[in-house]
Amino acid sequence: MTQTEIAVKMVLDRWNASIKNVDTLLGLLNDEKLLKEIAPGKNRGIYILGHLIAVHDDMIILLNMGEKVYPELNEPFIKLADKATDKIPALAELRAYWTNQCNIMNEQFSAMKPTDWFEKHTAVTAEDFEKEPIRNKLNIIITRTSHLQYHLGQLQLLK
Amino acid sequence: MTQTEIAVKMVLDRWNASIKNVDTLLGLLNDEKLLKEIAPGKNRGIYILGHLIAVHDDMIILLNMGEKVYPELNEPFIKLADKATDKIPALAELRAYWTNQCNIMNEQFSAMKPTDWFEKHTAVTAEDFEKEPIRNKLNIIITRTSHLQYHLGQLQLLK
Repeated sequence: MTQTEIAVKMVLDRWNASIKNVDTLLGLLNDEKLLKEIAPGKNRGIYILGHLIAVHDDMIILLNMGEKVYPELNEPFIKLADKATDKIPALAELRAYWTNQCNIMNEQFSAMKPTDWFEKHTAVTAEDFEKEPIRNKLNIIITRTSHLQYHLGQLQLLK
Repeated sequence: MTQTEIAVKMVLDRWNASIKNVDTLLGLLNDEKLLKEIAPGKNRGIYILGHLIAVHDDMIILLNMGEKVYPELNEPFIKLADKATDKIPALAELRAYWTNQCNIMNEQFSAMKPTDWFEKHTAVTAEDFEKEPIRNKLNIIITRTSHLQYHLGQLQLLK
């Protein structure tokens, strides 16, 4: 394996393991628990789940992998704070969205060759990318794995 | 920049940004807040801080960068659960340990060349490393950044 292949595998392994951790936890938390706040006065589990799906939808755009799967989640789960609106999908729907989106992303990630991950993401211009080659697709995975772990640590409190 | 250099920079940037996030948060949380539980019945902030220092001390061993700085923290913050012992350092001490350890690690990380990070870590045999080249030093940074973010999401609840 080349160092490029090794680096890409490490980053994707960490992403996949984090997704799997969330999957496992969602299997352990019933709807009643996910409707609770992770701590008094803080976000509810359902909000964090919707937030993760909305943020991962943005990744599809940044990675130039097509359209968002659930663009309607941006408003209630990114723009707005928890409990600011009642117009959010039911938990059963969000659970199904999560699984579907993970499958779609997994399929698209599998089609990438290691060097493809070092291409620029869509939020940086070709000119800026020339100067800052770390603004590539692999970095989107690295930063969003951090984001996922941050919220996983919070969801864990609902157990 | 080569893809190796880019990959190493991305991973270290994410580690450093995560450390900085914890630093900033520790500056915002007074001792009274850090002595509280992150959620009812869960770990206290002081425990999570001690736990992070103890886990990062292990990284020094795994990265073959010398001895642990605070080996006495393994017992109360990794082996034992929160509140299982009263024998833990005061918050002022832990805060100083955290800063000191971050400085030591930062100095050692800065002395590494990009390809050095693809060497095996100390918990894998040369034979296993031959088959699994992802068990390298850079992967220690990737997995511990995940760990750090997980607990950062929890500490954030104390704000």
